[in-house]
Amino acid sequence: MKSVNIIVTGFGRVGRAFWKVVEDKREVCRERYGLDLVPRAVFKSDGGIFGETALSMEPFLTDAPLKPLESPDWKPGLRVQDIIGDIEPGVLVECTPSDLRTGEPGLSHLTAALEKGWHAAAASKGALVLRFKELTGLARKSGVHLKFSAAAAAALPTLDVGIRSLAGADVLGIEGILNGTTNFILTRMGEGLDYGQALREARDKGIAEPDPTLDVDGWDTACKLLLISNAVMRTDFSLGEVQVEGIRDLSHELVVKASRLGKTIKLMGKCSKDERGHPWKLEVGLTLLDGSHPLYGVNGTTKGITFYTDTMGSVTVTGGKSDPLGAGAALLKDIIGIYHDR
Amino acid sequence: MKSVNIIVTGFGRVGRAFWKVVEDKREVCRERYGLDLVPRAVFKSDGGIFGETALSMEPFLTDAPLKPLESPDWKPGLRVQDIIGDIEPGVLVECTPSDLRTGEPGLSHLTAALEKGWHAAAASKGALVLRFKELTGLARKSGVHLKFSAAAAAALPTLDVGIRSLAGADVLGIEGILNGTTNFILTRMGEGLDYGQALREARDKGIAEPDPTLDVDGWDTACKLLLISNAVMRTDFSLGEVQVEGIRDLSHELVVKASRLGKTIKLMGKCSKDERGHPWKLEVGLTLLDGSHPLYGVNGTTKGITFYTDTMGSVTVTGGKSDPLGAGAALLKDIIGIYHDR
Repeated sequence: MKSVNIIVTGFGRVGRAFWKVVEDKREVCRERYGLDLVPRAVFKSDGGIFGETALSMEPFLTDAPLKPLESPDWKPGLRVQDIIGDIEPGVLVECTPSDLRTGEPGLSHLTAALEKGWHAAAASKGALVLRFKELTGLARKSGVHLKFSAAAAAALPTLDVGIRSLAGADVLGIEGILNGTTNFILTRMGEGLDYGQALREARDKGIAEPDPTLDVDGWDTACKLLLISNAVMRTDFSLGEVQVEGIRDLSHELVVKASRLGKTIKLMGKCSKDERGHPWKLEVGLTLLDGSHPLYGVNGTTKGITFYTDTMGSVTVTGGKSDPLGAGAALLKDIIGIYHDR
Repeated sequence: MKSVNIIVTGFGRVGRAFWKVVEDKREVCRERYGLDLVPRAVFKSDGGIFGETALSMEPFLTDAPLKPLESPDWKPGLRVQDIIGDIEPGVLVECTPSDLRTGEPGLSHLTAALEKGWHAAAASKGALVLRFKELTGLARKSGVHLKFSAAAAAALPTLDVGIRSLAGADVLGIEGILNGTTNFILTRMGEGLDYGQALREARDKGIAEPDPTLDVDGWDTACKLLLISNAVMRTDFSLGEVQVEGIRDLSHELVVKASRLGKTIKLMGKCSKDERGHPWKLEVGLTLLDGSHPLYGVNGTTKGITFYTDTMGSVTVTGGKSDPLGAGAALLKDIIGIYHDR
């Protein structure tokens, strides 16, 4: 049995779901993978809980906001950087909200962890989108793993398939439906709603966030596409190089017309060879698919990705729970993958 | 750079395709994965080529039958068991024809390799189907990898996804279209051919083998299902426990009728919980799918598999080249996975 220290930064929906998954899968981790995950610290923006020994997970399993007084070990103002060098390295689980301008606070968390010999599993995208090469280089230099399945479509295994299942093949192109919220909206528009109605329904169901800008304008798709492309094709794209179109301006009539023709309109992220100059091109935009496309039937909040390769043909993955639990499960999957390579 | 000795047993379509992939991907293996694959020996049923140093790959890249005289190192009657203890362990690549009654000659090859500290990557099913627990136990005991992606739907990553991408989740059930030949026949029947016509077309295109019994009677699907189930759900099924139905008796009228209703008939392998007694049940049989099923659009020689899980929802993979090149690429993928776990 291997004991693995776990520190989680962030205590939003994904951070909490992660603790729930760890608690539910405690025995699975021990029996199936020989891993004993030891909660050592939790950080919010205004402080952290950190003691000398394993934390009790009980306070993390509540839906109520985690208040300072719930733990005698709460230390106002404490940051992960302050303590991560003091404990036996394990895995830092990064779940803070993504800031796509600065990458913070995730960037500082990941940098500190990787420098101190910790593996990291990230659900937040900001730091990786902005500093992919630096962070992966730092992980390599420190001889640790930097995993980010949860940031790259979570329970849909985009990176596992692209990196491991297609190892040795050359990926010639990628197409993906990478955002569940917009795919839900487009699916409902195909069933007769207009954009506003579909967005309202997505909000009512808790699928769309109160401010859905990043989703509906295509930026969430662009971030995931960039991470997948940089990881799988070893490109070095920055977000400004991705051509991004969202779904706000799509007319209801066009969706219905496509539907009548037996086709469907999807918001796709694409990585393809550009004939003119730069060898790869990343774009996010509306695409008309017919029934023969492997992502044609991917509806609702479901996501999917197709890799086109030289020696293995095309390989498509679809599905994967699109909610915080799915992201929590993807984080656990990455932790298991770090220690258990069979 | 790590040098890895490679021995291949079997020199049929898959064995040859493997050498071609190794040759085509020599630079990819070196630059991307730091692996230098060194061909050390090739065995046919009547002897082998084995020298003191790396073999020239040139004679393996021909489509003509490999004759003894083509190499001065040809040794009639030599078996892999005779020499495998004498060279630095690397990976045995098992590509002999599958014998589902005895598991031979693959069983002796794999046993010798694993006992002598060699990793193994198998494209042949027989030995694994008959002696799954023994062989995986032997690999564990010797501290080596036993990989068999190429025996479990080849370029379609069934095992990678089931074992690694879903690590930590509980798989509650599996459904798969695991045989390209029968799926091609069923697809063509849906387009108007009767069984005999569709089978003839599959033969003419080189999709069906001269004796298609194992495919059309469901046994190829059953073998793959058993390997996936035993590997992913840690079951211990033998082939006799799988309930198997093939496609020979399917009437053309029924396929057309399903088609008219917007449905499709597929030969599916299923692993599900049995309410009465044995916790898992494996079955291969014809199944009616409607448009909402994730495998509905999997047509022609394409394969696909859906895993139903607790924490990650359902995850479906489709595609992957259904030919010897795809199997060769899957073998290379497994070799890379043995040495390169990032």
